[in-house]
Amino acid sequence: MNVLPRFLRHAPRLSGLCPAVALSTLAHRPIRLVPACCQNRTLQNVPRSRLVQHTGVRCMASSVQIPSDLLFRQLFDYQSYTYTYLLADCQTQEAILIDPVLELVNRDTHLIEDLQLNLKFAVNTHCHADHITGTGELKKRFPSCKSMISKDSGAKADVYIKEGDRVVFGNKELNVLSTPGHTNGCLTFVLHHDGRPVLAFTGDALLIRGCGRTDFQEGCSATLYESVHKKILCMPADTPLYPAHDYTGQTCTSVREEKAYNARLTKTKEEFIGIMERLNLPYPKAIDKSLPANMVCGVLEDLPNK
Amino acid sequence: MNVLPRFLRHAPRLSGLCPAVALSTLAHRPIRLVPACCQNRTLQNVPRSRLVQHTGVRCMASSVQIPSDLLFRQLFDYQSYTYTYLLADCQTQEAILIDPVLELVNRDTHLIEDLQLNLKFAVNTHCHADHITGTGELKKRFPSCKSMISKDSGAKADVYIKEGDRVVFGNKELNVLSTPGHTNGCLTFVLHHDGRPVLAFTGDALLIRGCGRTDFQEGCSATLYESVHKKILCMPADTPLYPAHDYTGQTCTSVREEKAYNARLTKTKEEFIGIMERLNLPYPKAIDKSLPANMVCGVLEDLPNK
Repeated sequence: MNVLPRFLRHAPRLSGLCPAVALSTLAHRPIRLVPACCQNRTLQNVPRSRLVQHTGVRCMASSVQIPSDLLFRQLFDYQSYTYTYLLADCQTQEAILIDPVLELVNRDTHLIEDLQLNLKFAVNTHCHADHITGTGELKKRFPSCKSMISKDSGAKADVYIKEGDRVVFGNKELNVLSTPGHTNGCLTFVLHHDGRPVLAFTGDALLIRGCGRTDFQEGCSATLYESVHKKILCMPADTPLYPAHDYTGQTCTSVREEKAYNARLTKTKEEFIGIMERLNLPYPKAIDKSLPANMVCGVLEDLPNK
Repeated sequence: MNVLPRFLRHAPRLSGLCPAVALSTLAHRPIRLVPACCQNRTLQNVPRSRLVQHTGVRCMASSVQIPSDLLFRQLFDYQSYTYTYLLADCQTQEAILIDPVLELVNRDTHLIEDLQLNLKFAVNTHCHADHITGTGELKKRFPSCKSMISKDSGAKADVYIKEGDRVVFGNKELNVLSTPGHTNGCLTFVLHHDGRPVLAFTGDALLIRGCGRTDFQEGCSATLYESVHKKILCMPADTPLYPAHDYTGQTCTSVREEKAYNARLTKTKEEFIGIMERLNLPYPKAIDKSLPANMVCGVLEDLPNK
């Protein structure tokens, strides 16, 4: 069974690096080396013939409209492969940041200032194990900013949110869904427009063609499977999904694609649990530093044993 | 004069790596080291007080609507920091790829297949010096796909395009603008909706808070300055701009932001020329391999001295 995201090419570089994703022991596609001008890089042979038609729809591509007065910026951390999301209501200038990274607070601060936004909340989808959150540092830069996380994360924050809550910024809001399994406190945030979801931020619960690993913190494969199917993949097919990480250079996916092509979550629950059990991933490289720091909102001075 | 993109943190890693951007000899902001848990990474101190108000508008944040039947995916190459763009007309399934990267043709092929698209054109904004184009390899995977580039690039392609041409896919089209200066053949592609530009792909002419370097190929600072001001920054302020590269983890900017904050292109033409002359950048690492390959559409077998 091949549960490797099919276009992954960075597995060697990622070995031991990424606690969120599970890749290392998976079967690999045939690889051929490319000529000297791009040595050290691989190009996988893929038969063109496998054009998938099993989804029963004529075209997998569709698009939804986000509100015209919503500012949305996707930001990336090359070290931890983390996506940070800036959302703002253009009318009121109120903004939120989802999953900021400590070392990139400076970049994010400049962007927020350049756009003349008021940062209201710095929100984490969960207590991360692969990077230190920027929420504590952002609160120093933007004194009116409050940090937010799930109470179930066990981490410190100004505001605790749970299933059914709303993260309000200006005239916009995110609906909070509880999607545990990678950790107990994992949340998914959904923005609605014209009565339907148009943006969903899935954290580590659902990644592009993959999912967060379930072998540390409070990881539970059965719980993750239920979360993804009952909370995320039940949304309309063209709902865009924005994960907390990607390791293949992709920025976005959709419910339709993950229901058709997610290598793990298209399986039965029992098969999924088996896949996750057999991953035998290396110990996450940054967890011993990241987790204690994230329990205190990324404020390193507040660490008990700094 | 500080012409460094203000939130850049990857300068050491990029030294000699990125022919498109010019960074290495620039003045740097104060840096402090962060504590042990994130050693080897830097967090720049930035005074919160510099909130910019000189633009004369109340809020820099605004948004435009892209067509609801346009599929748009931004893709990234971690090696060359190149953005590849997939655009498709959801009604007809016809698609184009802008600036594909050879080593990521496999990823792109899978995505195009997953979305059940017909790749009509593989288009280059210019003849790249920092990576080998994926257009030749894509043509093997998708026999109906044609490669496209500017005639002024001097590179081989199936279709040559120039200022005023249209790149048509299904019911959608990109307008072609000639924006030389980084190279002679540099193009910018603009998609209109409801009578206004809603997406612009600027290649290496305009990067986020920066621009392509002008010290190799047919680089000319004066020409680049004219191109950017007369073709790109004259578009409506909220036009989203998507560059061929970014080195700071950002995915997008706008005309408004670059007119206000671009460290080089907000200067006078003479100052800009001086800035570009004083950059003293290292020789581009990949140019000797990339340029010959890109002259033959990235088909390595067609290299005269392979």
